[in-house]
Amino acid sequence: MLPQDWKAKCEARKRVQLDSIPKEWMIEVPPKDQLNVVDVPRQCGLLNALELEITETVDVQAILDKLQRGDWSSVQVTTAFYKRAIIAQQLANCLTEIFVDRALGRARELDEHFSRTGTTVGPLHGLPISLKDQFAMKGLETIMGYAKWIGNYATSDCVLVEILYELGAVPFVRTNVPQTLMWGETMNHVFGRTLNPYNLAFTPGGSSGGEGALLAMKGSPLGVGTDIGGSLRIPSSFCGLYTLRPSYERLPYCGAVNSLQGQESISSVLGPMANSLSGVKIFTKAILDAKPWLKDPLVLRKGWDESEYQLVNHGNGKGLCFAIMWDNGVVKPHPPLHRAMNLTKQALEAAGHRVIDWEPHRMLEIYKNAETIFVADGGHDYREQCEGFEPLIETMSPSTDKHDLALDEPLNKSLVGEPCHRTAYELWQLHAEKRELRKSHLDHWNATVSRTGTGRPVDAIISPAVAYTAVPHGLNTDSFYTTLCNALDYSCSVFPVTFVDPEVDDPHPPHRFYNHEDEHIYKLYNSDLFPGCPVALQLIGGTQEEEAVIGMTEIVVEALNKLNEASA
Amino acid sequence: MLPQDWKAKCEARKRVQLDSIPKEWMIEVPPKDQLNVVDVPRQCGLLNALELEITETVDVQAILDKLQRGDWSSVQVTTAFYKRAIIAQQLANCLTEIFVDRALGRARELDEHFSRTGTTVGPLHGLPISLKDQFAMKGLETIMGYAKWIGNYATSDCVLVEILYELGAVPFVRTNVPQTLMWGETMNHVFGRTLNPYNLAFTPGGSSGGEGALLAMKGSPLGVGTDIGGSLRIPSSFCGLYTLRPSYERLPYCGAVNSLQGQESISSVLGPMANSLSGVKIFTKAILDAKPWLKDPLVLRKGWDESEYQLVNHGNGKGLCFAIMWDNGVVKPHPPLHRAMNLTKQALEAAGHRVIDWEPHRMLEIYKNAETIFVADGGHDYREQCEGFEPLIETMSPSTDKHDLALDEPLNKSLVGEPCHRTAYELWQLHAEKRELRKSHLDHWNATVSRTGTGRPVDAIISPAVAYTAVPHGLNTDSFYTTLCNALDYSCSVFPVTFVDPEVDDPHPPHRFYNHEDEHIYKLYNSDLFPGCPVALQLIGGTQEEEAVIGMTEIVVEALNKLNEASA
Repeated sequence: MLPQDWKAKCEARKRVQLDSIPKEWMIEVPPKDQLNVVDVPRQCGLLNALELEITETVDVQAILDKLQRGDWSSVQVTTAFYKRAIIAQQLANCLTEIFVDRALGRARELDEHFSRTGTTVGPLHGLPISLKDQFAMKGLETIMGYAKWIGNYATSDCVLVEILYELGAVPFVRTNVPQTLMWGETMNHVFGRTLNPYNLAFTPGGSSGGEGALLAMKGSPLGVGTDIGGSLRIPSSFCGLYTLRPSYERLPYCGAVNSLQGQESISSVLGPMANSLSGVKIFTKAILDAKPWLKDPLVLRKGWDESEYQLVNHGNGKGLCFAIMWDNGVVKPHPPLHRAMNLTKQALEAAGHRVIDWEPHRMLEIYKNAETIFVADGGHDYREQCEGFEPLIETMSPSTDKHDLALDEPLNKSLVGEPCHRTAYELWQLHAEKRELRKSHLDHWNATVSRTGTGRPVDAIISPAVAYTAVPHGLNTDSFYTTLCNALDYSCSVFPVTFVDPEVDDPHPPHRFYNHEDEHIYKLYNSDLFPGCPVALQLIGGTQEEEAVIGMTEIVVEALNKLNEASA
Repeated sequence: MLPQDWKAKCEARKRVQLDSIPKEWMIEVPPKDQLNVVDVPRQCGLLNALELEITETVDVQAILDKLQRGDWSSVQVTTAFYKRAIIAQQLANCLTEIFVDRALGRARELDEHFSRTGTTVGPLHGLPISLKDQFAMKGLETIMGYAKWIGNYATSDCVLVEILYELGAVPFVRTNVPQTLMWGETMNHVFGRTLNPYNLAFTPGGSSGGEGALLAMKGSPLGVGTDIGGSLRIPSSFCGLYTLRPSYERLPYCGAVNSLQGQESISSVLGPMANSLSGVKIFTKAILDAKPWLKDPLVLRKGWDESEYQLVNHGNGKGLCFAIMWDNGVVKPHPPLHRAMNLTKQALEAAGHRVIDWEPHRMLEIYKNAETIFVADGGHDYREQCEGFEPLIETMSPSTDKHDLALDEPLNKSLVGEPCHRTAYELWQLHAEKRELRKSHLDHWNATVSRTGTGRPVDAIISPAVAYTAVPHGLNTDSFYTTLCNALDYSCSVFPVTFVDPEVDDPHPPHRFYNHEDEHIYKLYNSDLFPGCPVALQLIGGTQEEEAVIGMTEIVVEALNKLNEASA
């Protein structure tokens, strides 16, 4: 039984959010038929020239340099990004908590410290950082997309926020999530649906979709999301961003709220999202240098390892051998993804690296094991949060009849069946199966040593993160390429490669479909909806190989930049 | 329904074991009333002078040096320890798999390699190593105390064994365990009961009790056991040995068999046991230097960290502050343990370190959470292994009527109740509770910074591993001091301090008992059974702080040695 006024309660909370926006930051929104809004911040007139310069500086190191030299104050930088975030909010509905005074107060304190002492507080001095709604901040509500959680004021900062403050950062907005967090799109009853700034009719992905949309609008220089099955990588793919999915317990999750609390078989992890790879590296290094294990008992006692970043275990970054997973044998990637992989292969070969084909290994078994674990409570956790407060969301489709392109029976349902509440013993058997799969996949990877010509197994795997680019709301069903890394705990990154170009991204002729989901995805591309959407790829390294993954992603990005320059 | 011949099957397997002992290594066993047999190897005449010299060299580094210089051959060293192991077997029944020819064949190959090339195969070249029965070796049975597993021949080496071979070691015996592994004593229907060489009427502890008894007899220079609630530390305490319980997934468990397979909430870990701390360090460093994460996907990508061993995070080992947990508030330690802590305090203060009192924090809650997790399958796993093959063992007491000193209702039963099969969701709630307990305990530890005078929180905690020394078979019920570290994943060591001396270890006057278990343990000491039993303590460091724990244990041991010298 839901209370009759559940909708009214959500609407009231949404009005509180609207009221927290300074009136002078409201803009005239473009006409409804303008679907791509990424240029609106440059056109709407709210940002002055300096604010445009600040917010379009995608290299986070460059922003930090300006702050550290005193060229820009933290108040200037925070104001600039806040205004742009509020524009993003009006167009893409990406925010949850908005706290302008508090953030600017913090920025002012940092500026005063700087002018008083001539020194910075820490390596992130003055930098505004956006946070997915899970990252509790003392005195702010932590709603995480649940009506039940309205009014849930945090009594302390989560460890991540505590450390960010020590490092000198300015947490300045929190960002939207889907109800339950377990969707690859972003919609809940309290804050509504987040849209993709490249096409408002499309999803930015999820569950860190608020971050995805905000960053696509350059409404934040650096955001923090989380990932349990692709929740950092799907929005980064759909919004053209860089991210890092670190291994379990490398970065401090303690004190952040979560869905499926206590589910530790496949742990959710947090990671940075940004418009530059420098942002990803700076965040990861700064947090690891702060020894997060001293505050979070679950974090690995393993600081930033510069030698791993310098790729000492990968031939010092010279003459690497990458393997491309063109197709995982479950769902075939759309043509733009295929082109992106081809571009990457070309770029890497031109830079003196080898590229071989990756042979997918037991992908469906791995996926099924993970999906079964995620619903091992039979959905009890979700129901606990919703019952008596709001309906459990059953589809991300905008219409209750679902989207006309929606897939009736996604593959994960036919693999896993209806969520079934397992016993502890049954869960242990799933763990034993997972261990065997991890060992088998590692052996498979190690066996590539016979094909690489480097004396090492493949240095990294390159694949799509999702088989397609951003799709219309309600149509994102694929997490086959991402879940692999969560299940096996491989550290991995996402990096943007190009944009969909109908001139070159012709539909492929139909192949022999692997399953009905593969067929659905194939047919989706024929609808020719995607021009201008960002196309990104995933780079997969070993477990706890975050530094090397960043180092190797830099190599790939540099190679792609050179290729672009050469063809320009 | 058990098959009528289950006993006969076990007896037949035991006869196969007896037949695997070379006849010329059988000794005349001492009369039944000789309870302390640790000197028998020196007296029985089976070992020649060199073999006695070899086996009484407790410093593992000294043995390796002799091997590396060619002073001793691996065949000599392996033969010497094998003979002594077989003596131990005849007195204390500590072995499972005996494979003399195979081990000596391996030793011969290593000697040939050395004489051919003048080089060693690796850092453990030629060193015999004993292994708890869990560590599967290709071609040998892995029975692990279950009648059902007789005839269970391993088709490959576990990762640990694979690495030990690469490092040049000579696995030479496997050692006994209790049925289910979840006892602090060592008895099963196939191989029988293991006895404590310091008093054959006493238990050597468990579950790594076969290792404990073997090492107490100096029948191995270095053994490997496992620990999920104290299984390395209880036998090390009861047998006067050094050990290290590393944190989860630091050392490679992959391919080893286990009880409660897939139970990952509180993972069993493997660790070294030895008569010298050098053995503990050499094993840990050698395995970590071998990059075990390349073979075992669950192992942390964190090699031996020399700077952590040098205690860079602990004032470089100068002026440390230790905290002694004199009493955990659940069961009060026996007088010899109290004296050992006093000696250690004296020794550390004399060496220029500070010693403060540790305030126990939420000990019963932590214990209850862990014990509830261990039986979250309601005992299903145990029953699966026993049903249709043998009875599930319900007591470690030698008589079916139980020992006359046995405790009717141990505290863990009254805390946890009858094993109850939990749902996955209920298990998740236990995980959430455990996370909160870990954070709370870490904060408690960090708060000691106000009392240490070093500017750091307490560097390590020193406590008993068990509230008493070895006890008569069937009477070991305490795992309150050990389980703390498994539940919170603190790395920790055990080191021997002294022996029970009735001259100085007077019973304490009765205190106000915390619970009936505490009362039972108090009364047990009055029975005055313990003269000559080893007394050991536990040193507790942070999570994944293995190197520092070894480094700090060296400091404690050196301080104790100096104190001994001064008082001698």
